[in-house]
Amino acid sequence: MTSSHHLPRLTLVLGGARSGKSRYAEELITGAAPPWVYLATAEALDDEMRERIAQHRHRRNAQWLTTDAPRDLAGAIAKADGEGRPILIDCLTLWLSNTLLAGADVEKACEDLAVVLEKARGPVVAVSNEVGFGLVPETPLGRRFRDAQGRLNQQVAAIADRVVLVAAGLPLTLK
Amino acid sequence: MTSSHHLPRLTLVLGGARSGKSRYAEELITGAAPPWVYLATAEALDDEMRERIAQHRHRRNAQWLTTDAPRDLAGAIAKADGEGRPILIDCLTLWLSNTLLAGADVEKACEDLAVVLEKARGPVVAVSNEVGFGLVPETPLGRRFRDAQGRLNQQVAAIADRVVLVAAGLPLTLK
Amino acid sequence: MTSSHHLPRLTLVLGGARSGKSRYAEELITGAAPPWVYLATAEALDDEMRERIAQHRHRRNAQWLTTDAPRDLAGAIAKADGEGRPILIDCLTLWLSNTLLAGADVEKACEDLAVVLEKARGPVVAVSNEVGFGLVPETPLGRRFRDAQGRLNQQVAAIADRVVLVAAGLPLTLK
Repeated sequence: MTSSHHLPRLTLVLGGARSGKSRYAEELITGAAPPWVYLATAEALDDEMRERIAQHRHRRNAQWLTTDAPRDLAGAIAKADGEGRPILIDCLTLWLSNTLLAGADVEKACEDLAVVLEKARGPVVAVSNEVGFGLVPETPLGRRFRDAQGRLNQQVAAIADRVVLVAAGLPLTLK
Repeated sequence: MTSSHHLPRLTLVLGGARSGKSRYAEELITGAAPPWVYLATAEALDDEMRERIAQHRHRRNAQWLTTDAPRDLAGAIAKADGEGRPILIDCLTLWLSNTLLAGADVEKACEDLAVVLEKARGPVVAVSNEVGFGLVPETPLGRRFRDAQGRLNQQVAAIADRVVLVAAGLPLTLK
Repeated sequence: MTSSHHLPRLTLVLGGARSGKSRYAEELITGAAPPWVYLATAEALDDEMRERIAQHRHRRNAQWLTTDAPRDLAGAIAKADGEGRPILIDCLTLWLSNTLLAGADVEKACEDLAVVLEKARGPVVAVSNEVGFGLVPETPLGRRFRDAQGRLNQQVAAIADRVVLVAAGLPLTLK
Protein backbone atom coordinates (compact mmCIF):
# COMPACT_ATOMS: atom_id res chain seq x y z
CA MET A 1 0.00 0.00 0.00
CA THR A 2 2.78 2.40 0.95
CA SER A 3 6.21 2.26 -0.60
CA SER A 4 9.19 2.23 1.75
CA HIS A 5 10.48 5.72 1.06
CA HIS A 6 7.11 7.28 1.93
CA LEU A 7 7.02 5.83 5.40
CA PRO A 8 8.26 8.53 7.81
CA ARG A 9 10.47 8.01 10.84
CA LEU A 10 7.63 7.90 13.38
CA THR A 11 3.92 7.38 12.69
CA LEU A 12 1.20 7.38 15.35
CA VAL A 13 -1.96 5.45 14.46
CA LEU A 14 -4.81 6.42 16.78
CA GLY A 15 -8.16 4.70 16.77
CA GLY A 16 -11.04 3.36 18.78
CA ALA A 17 -11.69 -0.25 19.71
CA ARG A 18 -12.23 -2.46 16.65
CA SER A 19 -11.51 0.46 14.37
CA GLY A 20 -9.12 -1.43 12.12
CA LYS A 21 -6.16 0.56 13.50
CA SER A 22 -3.89 -2.50 13.92
CA ARG A 23 -4.55 -3.69 10.39
CA TYR A 24 -3.95 -0.20 9.02
CA ALA A 25 -0.68 0.09 10.97
CA GLU A 26 0.46 -3.31 9.66
CA GLU A 27 -0.17 -2.16 6.11
CA LEU A 28 1.97 0.91 6.76
CA ILE A 29 4.97 -0.88 8.24
CA THR A 30 4.96 -3.61 5.58
CA GLY A 31 5.73 -0.81 3.12
CA ALA A 32 9.27 -0.97 4.58
CA ALA A 33 11.73 -3.80 3.82
CA PRO A 34 11.16 -6.96 5.91
CA PRO A 35 11.67 -8.44 8.38
CA TRP A 36 9.45 -6.26 10.53
CA VAL A 37 9.60 -6.31 14.32
CA TYR A 38 6.24 -6.65 16.00
CA LEU A 39 6.41 -5.37 19.57
CA ALA A 40 3.47 -7.02 21.30
CA THR A 41 2.43 -5.30 24.52
CA ALA A 42 -0.52 -7.54 25.37
CA GLU A 43 -0.33 -9.86 28.36
CA ALA A 44 -2.47 -12.98 27.88
CA LEU A 45 -4.05 -12.95 31.33
CA ASP A 46 -7.37 -14.52 30.36
CA ASP A 47 -9.13 -16.35 27.53
CA GLU A 48 -10.58 -13.19 26.06
CA MET A 49 -7.07 -11.67 25.73
CA ARG A 50 -5.61 -14.93 24.38
CA GLU A 51 -8.28 -14.99 21.67
CA ARG A 52 -7.57 -11.38 20.68
CA ILE A 53 -3.82 -11.96 20.56
CA ALA A 54 -4.35 -15.09 18.44
CA GLN A 55 -6.51 -13.17 15.98
CA HIS A 56 -3.84 -10.50 15.57
CA ARG A 57 -1.01 -13.05 15.14
CA HIS A 58 -3.07 -14.92 12.58
CA ARG A 59 -2.65 -12.03 10.12
CA ARG A 60 1.14 -12.01 10.39
CA ASN A 61 3.52 -14.34 8.52
CA ALA A 62 7.15 -15.47 8.82
CA GLN A 63 8.48 -12.09 7.74
CA TRP A 64 7.53 -10.81 11.20
CA LEU A 65 9.80 -11.01 14.24
CA THR A 66 7.50 -10.92 17.25
CA THR A 67 8.82 -9.71 20.61
CA ASP A 68 6.72 -9.51 23.76
CA ALA A 69 7.24 -6.15 25.43
CA PRO A 70 4.46 -5.74 27.97
CA ARG A 71 6.61 -3.58 30.27
CA ASP A 72 10.08 -2.67 28.91
CA LEU A 73 8.82 -1.23 25.68
CA ALA A 74 11.49 1.48 25.56
CA GLY A 75 14.25 -1.16 25.79
CA ALA A 76 12.67 -3.30 23.08
CA ILE A 77 12.33 -0.32 20.73
CA ALA A 78 15.94 0.74 21.28
CA LYS A 79 17.18 -2.80 20.60
CA ALA A 80 15.17 -3.40 17.40
CA ASP A 81 15.88 0.09 16.10
CA GLY A 82 19.59 -0.40 16.81
CA GLU A 83 19.45 -3.49 14.59
CA GLY A 84 17.92 -1.36 11.80
CA ARG A 85 14.52 -3.10 11.84
CA PRO A 86 11.20 -1.42 10.98
CA ILE A 87 9.05 -1.57 14.12
CA LEU A 88 5.35 -1.91 14.74
CA ILE A 89 4.23 -1.22 18.34
CA ASP A 90 0.82 -2.74 19.06
CA CYS A 91 -0.12 -1.02 21.22
CA LEU A 92 0.75 1.88 23.54
CA THR A 93 -2.58 1.48 25.33
CA LEU A 94 -1.89 -2.02 26.63
CA TRP A 95 1.64 -1.02 27.59
CA LEU A 96 0.25 1.98 29.51
CA SER A 97 -2.34 -0.20 31.20
CA ASN A 98 0.33 -2.74 32.22
CA THR A 99 2.52 0.08 33.54
CA LEU A 100 -0.30 1.67 35.53
CA LEU A 101 -1.53 -1.62 36.99
CA ALA A 102 2.02 -2.58 38.01
CA GLY A 103 2.13 0.54 40.17
CA ALA A 104 5.06 2.02 38.25
CA ASP A 105 5.79 5.74 37.85
CA VAL A 106 3.62 6.32 34.79
CA GLU A 107 4.82 9.83 34.09
CA LYS A 108 8.47 8.76 34.12
CA ALA A 109 7.74 5.66 32.03
CA CYS A 110 6.01 7.79 29.39
CA GLU A 111 8.85 10.29 29.41
CA ASP A 112 11.43 7.48 28.94
CA LEU A 113 9.36 6.04 26.11
CA ALA A 114 9.09 9.41 24.39
CA VAL A 115 12.87 9.90 24.60
CA VAL A 116 13.50 6.54 22.90
CA LEU A 117 10.87 7.22 20.23
CA GLU A 118 12.40 10.62 19.55
CA LYS A 119 15.88 9.12 19.14
CA ALA A 120 14.83 6.14 16.97
CA ARG A 121 15.99 6.16 13.34
CA GLY A 122 12.76 4.37 12.39
CA PRO A 123 10.58 3.63 10.66
CA VAL A 124 8.43 3.09 13.73
CA VAL A 125 4.65 2.82 13.62
CA ALA A 126 2.93 3.05 17.01
CA VAL A 127 -0.71 2.08 17.54
CA SER A 128 -2.67 3.71 20.36
CA ASN A 129 -6.27 4.01 21.48
CA GLU A 130 -8.20 7.24 21.61
CA VAL A 131 -10.25 6.74 24.81
CA GLY A 132 -11.39 10.24 25.77
CA PHE A 133 -14.61 10.67 23.76
CA GLY A 134 -17.02 9.33 26.38
CA LEU A 135 -18.44 10.41 29.72
CA VAL A 136 -16.15 10.81 32.74
CA PRO A 137 -15.28 7.29 33.98
CA GLU A 138 -16.95 6.16 37.21
CA THR A 139 -13.76 5.02 38.95
CA PRO A 140 -10.61 6.92 40.00
CA LEU A 141 -8.51 4.27 38.20
CA GLY A 142 -10.54 4.78 35.03
CA ARG A 143 -10.02 8.53 35.23
CA ARG A 144 -6.29 8.14 35.90
CA PHE A 145 -5.93 5.81 32.95
CA ARG A 146 -7.89 8.06 30.62
CA ASP A 147 -5.81 11.08 31.64
CA ALA A 148 -2.52 9.20 31.23
CA GLN A 149 -3.57 7.86 27.82
CA GLY A 150 -4.56 11.31 26.62
CA ARG A 151 -1.27 12.80 27.76
CA LEU A 152 0.77 9.98 26.21
CA ASN A 153 -1.04 10.38 22.89
CA GLN A 154 -0.31 14.12 22.90
CA GLN A 155 3.33 13.45 23.79
CA VAL A 156 3.87 10.94 20.98
CA ALA A 157 1.83 12.99 18.48
CA ALA A 158 4.07 16.00 19.16
CA ILE A 159 7.21 14.09 18.09
CA ALA A 160 5.58 12.02 15.33
CA ASP A 161 6.02 12.91 11.69
CA ARG A 162 2.60 11.62 10.85
CA VAL A 163 -0.55 11.05 12.94
CA VAL A 164 -3.73 9.40 11.68
CA LEU A 165 -7.04 8.68 13.37
CA VAL A 166 -8.66 5.46 12.14
CA ALA A 167 -12.44 4.94 12.20
CA ALA A 168 -14.24 2.06 10.48
CA GLY A 169 -10.92 1.04 8.92
CA LEU A 170 -10.44 4.43 7.26
CA PRO A 171 -7.71 6.96 8.15
CA LEU A 172 -8.17 10.66 8.86
CA THR A 173 -4.89 12.57 8.70
CA LEU A 174 -4.27 14.69 11.80
CA LYS A 175 -0.65 15.51 10.96
CA MET B 1 -28.82 19.86 -0.05
CA THR B 2 -27.54 17.13 -2.34
CA SER B 3 -28.92 16.58 -5.83
CA SER B 4 -29.96 13.06 -6.76
CA HIS B 5 -27.16 12.25 -9.17
CA HIS B 6 -24.51 13.08 -6.55
CA LEU B 7 -25.81 10.56 -4.06
CA PRO B 8 -23.76 7.37 -4.44
CA ARG B 9 -25.06 3.80 -4.28
CA LEU B 10 -24.15 3.26 -0.61
CA THR B 11 -23.29 5.89 2.01
CA LEU B 12 -22.34 5.14 5.62
CA VAL B 13 -23.00 7.95 8.11
CA LEU B 14 -21.09 7.33 11.34
CA GLY B 15 -21.51 9.45 14.41
CA GLY B 16 -21.72 9.60 18.15
CA ALA B 17 -24.85 9.94 20.25
CA ARG B 18 -26.72 13.21 19.58
CA SER B 19 -24.23 14.08 16.88
CA GLY B 20 -26.85 15.06 14.31
CA LYS B 21 -26.07 11.96 12.23
CA SER B 22 -29.75 11.05 11.61
CA ARG B 23 -30.58 14.55 10.47
CA TYR B 24 -27.54 14.65 8.21
CA ALA B 25 -28.47 11.26 6.72
CA GLU B 26 -32.03 12.43 6.11
CA GLU B 27 -30.73 15.46 4.24
CA LEU B 28 -28.62 13.15 2.06
CA ILE B 29 -31.39 10.72 1.11
CA THR B 30 -33.89 13.48 0.40
CA GLY B 31 -31.56 14.53 -2.40
CA ALA B 32 -32.99 11.49 -4.26
CA ALA B 33 -36.50 11.42 -5.75
CA PRO B 34 -39.27 10.65 -3.20
CA PRO B 35 -40.85 8.64 -1.75
CA TRP B 36 -38.01 7.58 0.54
CA VAL B 37 -38.14 4.40 2.57
CA TYR B 38 -37.25 4.86 6.22
CA LEU B 39 -36.14 1.56 7.73
CA ALA B 40 -36.63 2.03 11.46
CA THR B 41 -34.68 -0.44 13.57
CA ALA B 42 -35.69 0.88 16.98
CA GLU B 43 -37.95 -1.19 19.19
CA ALA B 44 -40.09 0.97 21.48
CA LEU B 45 -39.51 -1.06 24.63
CA ASP B 46 -39.77 1.80 27.11
CA ASP B 47 -40.84 5.44 27.39
CA GLU B 48 -37.35 6.78 26.74
CA MET B 49 -37.19 4.90 23.42
CA ARG B 50 -40.75 5.90 22.49
CA GLU B 51 -39.84 9.55 23.03
CA ARG B 52 -36.73 9.26 20.85
CA ILE B 53 -38.63 7.50 18.07
CA ALA B 54 -41.35 10.15 18.20
CA GLN B 55 -38.77 12.95 17.90
CA HIS B 56 -37.23 11.31 14.83
CA ARG B 57 -40.62 10.70 13.16
CA HIS B 58 -41.62 14.28 13.86
CA ARG B 59 -39.05 15.49 11.33
CA ARG B 60 -40.41 13.28 8.54
CA ASN B 61 -43.43 14.06 6.35
CA ALA B 62 -45.79 12.14 4.06
CA GLN B 63 -43.11 11.61 1.41
CA TRP B 64 -41.58 9.00 3.72
CA LEU B 65 -42.60 5.33 3.77
CA THR B 66 -41.69 4.06 7.22
CA THR B 67 -41.07 0.33 7.74
CA ASP B 68 -40.14 -1.19 11.07
CA ALA B 69 -37.21 -3.55 10.64
CA PRO B 70 -35.83 -4.25 14.10
CA ARG B 71 -34.61 -7.73 13.11
CA ASP B 72 -35.00 -8.64 9.40
CA LEU B 73 -33.18 -5.60 8.11
CA ALA B 74 -31.61 -7.48 5.19
CA GLY B 75 -35.06 -8.58 3.98
CA ALA B 76 -36.49 -5.06 4.30
CA ILE B 77 -33.57 -3.57 2.34
CA ALA B 78 -33.88 -6.14 -0.43
CA LYS B 79 -37.63 -5.51 -0.73
CA ALA B 80 -37.45 -1.70 -0.82
CA ASP B 81 -34.44 -1.72 -3.13
CA GLY B 82 -36.24 -4.17 -5.42
CA GLU B 83 -39.06 -1.60 -5.68
CA GLY B 84 -36.52 1.04 -6.69
CA ARG B 85 -36.90 3.17 -3.57
CA PRO B 86 -34.13 5.29 -2.00
CA ILE B 87 -33.52 3.87 1.48
CA LEU B 88 -32.49 5.39 4.79
CA ILE B 89 -31.48 2.86 7.48
CA ASP B 90 -31.67 4.38 10.98
CA CYS B 91 -29.74 2.75 12.42
CA LEU B 92 -27.37 -0.23 12.21
CA THR B 93 -26.55 0.15 15.90
CA LEU B 94 -30.07 -0.56 17.14
CA TRP B 95 -30.42 -3.44 14.68
CA LEU B 96 -27.14 -4.90 15.95
CA SER B 97 -28.24 -4.47 19.55
CA ASN B 98 -31.58 -6.20 18.82
CA THR B 99 -29.73 -9.02 17.04
CA LEU B 100 -27.25 -9.51 19.86
CA LEU B 101 -29.88 -9.39 22.62
CA ALA B 102 -32.06 -11.90 20.73
CA GLY B 103 -29.20 -14.39 20.96
CA ALA B 104 -28.87 -14.65 17.18
CA ASP B 105 -25.65 -15.49 15.30
CA VAL B 106 -24.32 -11.93 15.07
CA GLU B 107 -21.47 -12.72 12.71
CA LYS B 108 -23.78 -14.46 10.23
CA ALA B 109 -26.40 -11.71 10.51
CA CYS B 110 -23.77 -9.04 9.74
CA GLU B 111 -22.48 -11.09 6.82
CA ASP B 112 -26.02 -11.47 5.41
CA LEU B 113 -26.59 -7.74 5.83
CA ALA B 114 -23.34 -6.89 4.05
CA VAL B 115 -24.25 -9.16 1.12
CA VAL B 116 -27.60 -7.39 0.66
CA LEU B 117 -25.99 -3.94 0.96
CA GLU B 118 -23.39 -4.89 -1.60
CA LYS B 119 -26.04 -6.09 -4.07
CA ALA B 120 -28.42 -3.13 -3.61
CA ARG B 121 -28.79 -0.75 -6.54
CA GLY B 122 -29.29 2.10 -4.10
CA PRO B 123 -29.20 4.82 -3.18
CA VAL B 124 -28.93 3.54 0.38
CA VAL B 125 -27.83 5.70 3.31
CA ALA B 126 -27.01 3.75 6.49
CA VAL B 127 -26.61 5.44 9.88
CA SER B 128 -24.41 3.81 12.50
CA ASN B 129 -22.84 4.72 15.83
CA GLU B 130 -19.13 4.97 16.45
CA VAL B 131 -18.88 3.51 19.98
CA GLY B 132 -15.21 2.61 20.38
CA PHE B 133 -13.65 5.86 21.59
CA GLY B 134 -14.05 5.23 25.32
CA LEU B 135 -12.53 3.01 27.98
CA VAL B 136 -12.99 -0.75 27.81
CA PRO B 137 -16.61 -1.50 28.87
CA GLU B 138 -17.09 -3.06 32.31
CA THR B 139 -19.31 -5.93 31.18
CA PRO B 140 -18.67 -8.85 28.78
CA LEU B 141 -21.89 -7.94 26.94
CA GLY B 142 -20.67 -4.36 26.56
CA ARG B 143 -17.35 -5.58 25.17
CA ARG B 144 -19.06 -8.02 22.78
CA PHE B 145 -21.35 -5.28 21.52
CA ARG B 146 -18.53 -2.79 21.05
CA ASP B 147 -16.48 -5.35 19.15
CA ALA B 148 -19.41 -6.35 16.93
CA GLN B 149 -20.25 -2.71 16.20
CA GLY B 150 -16.67 -1.92 15.27
CA ARG B 151 -16.46 -4.91 12.94
CA LEU B 152 -19.83 -4.12 11.32
CA ASN B 153 -18.79 -0.50 10.73
CA GLN B 154 -15.57 -1.68 9.07
CA GLN B 155 -17.50 -4.20 6.97
CA VAL B 156 -20.01 -1.65 5.69
CA ALA B 157 -17.36 1.06 5.24
CA ALA B 158 -15.36 -1.31 3.02
CA ILE B 159 -18.26 -1.69 0.55
CA ALA B 160 -19.59 1.87 0.87
CA ASP B 161 -18.89 4.46 -1.81
CA ARG B 162 -18.87 7.22 0.75
CA VAL B 163 -18.27 7.28 4.51
CA VAL B 164 -18.67 10.33 6.74
CA LEU B 165 -18.17 10.84 10.45
CA VAL B 166 -20.57 13.38 11.96
CA ALA B 167 -19.71 15.42 15.06
CA ALA B 168 -21.75 18.40 16.31
CA GLY B 169 -23.88 18.13 13.18
CA LEU B 170 -20.87 18.55 10.87
CA PRO B 171 -19.51 15.86 8.53
CA LEU B 172 -15.90 14.73 8.18
CA THR B 173 -15.30 12.75 5.02
CA LEU B 174 -13.55 9.42 5.68
CA LYS B 175 -14.06 8.03 2.15
CA MET C 1 0.13 31.06 16.27
CA THR C 2 -2.88 32.84 14.82
CA SER C 3 -2.88 36.55 14.09
CA SER C 4 -5.79 38.58 15.39
CA HIS C 5 -7.52 39.23 12.10
CA HIS C 6 -7.69 35.51 11.32
CA LEU C 7 -9.59 34.68 14.50
CA PRO C 8 -13.29 34.60 13.64
CA ARG C 9 -16.15 35.89 15.78
CA LEU C 10 -17.01 32.51 17.32
CA THR C 11 -14.88 29.36 17.38
CA LEU C 12 -15.94 26.03 18.90
CA VAL C 13 -13.10 23.75 19.99
CA LEU C 14 -14.38 20.20 20.52
CA GLY C 15 -12.25 17.44 21.96
CA GLY C 16 -12.06 14.45 24.21
CA ALA C 17 -10.64 14.29 27.71
CA ARG C 18 -6.92 15.16 27.81
CA SER C 19 -6.96 15.89 24.11
CA GLY C 20 -5.11 19.19 24.37
CA LYS C 21 -8.28 21.13 23.51
CA SER C 22 -7.80 23.76 26.26
CA ARG C 23 -4.23 24.42 25.23
CA TYR C 24 -5.23 24.66 21.58
CA ALA C 25 -8.05 27.07 22.44
CA GLU C 26 -5.67 29.23 24.49
CA GLU C 27 -3.31 29.44 21.53
CA LEU C 28 -6.20 30.61 19.36
CA ILE C 29 -7.46 33.35 21.67
CA THR C 30 -3.99 34.69 22.39
CA GLY C 31 -3.84 35.54 18.68
CA ALA C 32 -6.14 38.45 19.62
CA ALA C 33 -4.94 41.54 21.52
CA PRO C 34 -4.67 41.06 25.31
CA PRO C 35 -6.00 41.12 27.94
CA TRP C 36 -8.01 37.97 27.36
CA VAL C 37 -10.95 37.01 29.54
CA TYR C 38 -10.85 33.45 30.79
CA LEU C 39 -14.35 32.31 31.76
CA ALA C 40 -13.75 29.38 34.10
CA THR C 41 -16.77 27.13 34.53
CA ALA C 42 -15.20 24.57 36.86
CA GLU C 43 -16.32 24.33 40.45
CA ALA C 44 -13.56 23.13 42.75
CA LEU C 45 -15.65 20.63 44.68
CA ASP C 46 -12.88 18.14 45.45
CA ASP C 47 -9.10 17.73 45.36
CA GLU C 48 -9.12 16.16 41.90
CA MET C 49 -10.92 19.19 40.47
CA ARG C 50 -8.70 21.63 42.39
CA GLU C 51 -5.63 19.95 40.90
CA ARG C 52 -7.02 20.17 37.36
CA ILE C 53 -7.97 23.82 37.77
CA ALA C 54 -4.50 24.60 39.15
CA GLN C 55 -2.84 22.90 36.17
CA HIS C 56 -4.88 24.96 33.74
CA ARG C 57 -4.23 28.26 35.60
CA HIS C 58 -0.53 27.47 35.68
CA ARG C 59 -0.33 27.99 31.93
CA ARG C 60 -1.89 31.44 32.06
CA ASN C 61 -0.08 34.68 32.91
CA ALA C 62 -1.00 38.21 34.00
CA GLN C 63 -2.44 39.08 30.60
CA TRP C 64 -5.43 36.91 31.51
CA LEU C 65 -8.48 38.18 33.38
CA THR C 66 -10.02 35.14 35.01
CA THR C 67 -13.72 35.14 35.91
CA ASP C 68 -15.50 32.23 37.54
CA ALA C 69 -18.75 31.53 35.73
CA PRO C 70 -19.92 28.08 36.82
CA ARG C 71 -23.61 28.99 36.35
CA ASP C 72 -24.29 32.41 34.81
CA LEU C 73 -22.10 31.90 31.79
CA ALA C 74 -24.39 33.88 29.49
CA GLY C 75 -24.17 36.91 31.77
CA ALA C 76 -20.38 36.69 32.01
CA ILE C 77 -20.03 36.45 28.23
CA ALA C 78 -22.30 39.44 27.65
CA LYS C 79 -20.36 41.52 30.18
CA ALA C 80 -16.86 40.71 28.87
CA ASP C 81 -17.96 41.02 25.25
CA GLY C 82 -19.58 44.37 26.05
CA GLU C 83 -16.18 45.54 27.33
CA GLY C 84 -14.62 44.49 24.02
CA ARG C 85 -12.50 41.67 25.47
CA PRO C 86 -11.53 38.49 23.60
CA ILE C 87 -13.10 35.59 25.53
CA LEU C 88 -12.07 32.00 26.17
CA ILE C 89 -14.80 29.77 27.66
CA ASP C 90 -13.34 26.69 29.34
CA CYS C 91 -15.58 24.83 29.15
CA LEU C 92 -19.18 24.37 28.06
CA THR C 93 -19.17 20.81 29.43
CA LEU C 94 -18.57 21.80 33.04
CA TRP C 95 -21.12 24.59 32.76
CA LEU C 96 -23.66 22.11 31.36
CA SER C 97 -22.88 19.65 34.13
CA ASN C 98 -23.31 22.37 36.79
CA THR C 99 -26.60 23.44 35.19
CA LEU C 100 -27.95 19.91 35.03
CA LEU C 101 -26.91 19.00 38.56
CA ALA C 102 -28.46 22.22 39.92
CA GLY C 103 -31.80 21.04 38.58
CA ALA C 104 -32.15 24.03 36.25
CA ASP C 105 -34.06 24.03 32.95
CA VAL C 106 -31.22 22.80 30.76
CA GLU C 107 -32.95 23.39 27.45
CA LYS C 108 -33.75 27.01 28.33
CA ALA C 109 -30.24 27.61 29.73
CA CYS C 110 -28.69 26.31 26.47
CA GLU C 111 -31.05 28.45 24.41
CA ASP C 112 -30.14 31.56 26.46
CA LEU C 113 -26.45 30.77 26.05
CA ALA C 114 -26.80 30.33 22.29
CA VAL C 115 -28.59 33.68 21.99
CA VAL C 116 -25.74 35.47 23.80
CA LEU C 117 -23.09 33.67 21.74
CA GLU C 118 -24.89 34.59 18.54
CA LYS C 119 -25.04 38.27 19.54
CA ALA C 120 -21.44 38.54 20.77
CA ARG C 121 -19.07 40.66 18.69
CA GLY C 122 -16.23 38.33 19.63
CA PRO C 123 -13.73 36.95 19.27
CA VAL C 124 -15.04 34.15 21.47
CA VAL C 125 -13.44 30.70 21.65
CA ALA C 126 -15.57 28.06 23.39
CA VAL C 127 -14.16 24.71 24.51
CA SER C 128 -16.47 21.72 24.77
CA ASN C 129 -16.21 17.96 25.18
CA GLU C 130 -17.32 15.46 22.60
CA VAL C 131 -18.77 12.71 24.83
CA GLY C 132 -20.94 10.64 22.49
CA PHE C 133 -18.47 8.14 21.03
CA GLY C 134 -18.93 5.40 23.62
CA LEU C 135 -21.56 2.87 24.60
CA VAL C 136 -24.92 4.03 25.97
CA PRO C 137 -24.32 5.21 29.59
CA GLU C 138 -25.63 2.94 32.34
CA THR C 139 -27.51 5.63 34.26
CA PRO C 140 -30.44 7.87 33.27
CA LEU C 141 -28.42 10.90 34.43
CA GLY C 142 -25.52 9.84 32.23
CA ARG C 143 -27.83 9.50 29.24
CA ARG C 144 -29.49 12.87 29.93
CA PHE C 145 -26.11 14.55 30.20
CA ARG C 146 -24.80 12.94 27.02
CA ASP C 147 -27.91 13.96 25.10
CA ALA C 148 -27.79 17.53 26.41
CA GLN C 149 -24.08 17.83 25.57
CA GLY C 150 -24.61 16.54 22.05
CA ARG C 151 -27.46 18.96 21.46
CA LEU C 152 -25.52 21.91 22.90
CA ASN C 153 -22.51 21.11 20.71
CA GLN C 154 -24.76 21.02 17.62
CA GLN C 155 -26.40 24.29 18.66
CA VAL C 156 -23.11 26.14 19.14
CA ALA C 157 -21.53 24.55 16.04
CA ALA C 158 -24.44 25.82 13.94
CA ILE C 159 -23.76 29.45 14.88
CA ALA C 160 -19.95 29.17 15.05
CA ASP C 161 -17.78 30.47 12.24
CA ARG C 162 -15.22 27.79 12.85
CA VAL C 163 -15.39 24.35 14.52
CA VAL C 164 -12.41 22.09 15.17
CA LEU C 165 -12.15 18.66 16.74
CA VAL C 166 -8.92 18.17 18.71
CA ALA C 167 -7.33 14.74 19.19
CA ALA C 168 -3.85 14.16 20.60
CA GLY C 169 -3.31 17.92 20.54
CA LEU C 170 -3.98 18.16 16.81
CA PRO C 171 -6.97 19.92 15.20
CA LEU C 172 -9.30 18.52 12.56
CA THR C 173 -11.36 21.24 10.89
CA LEU C 174 -15.10 20.46 10.90
CA LYS C 175 -16.19 23.91 9.72
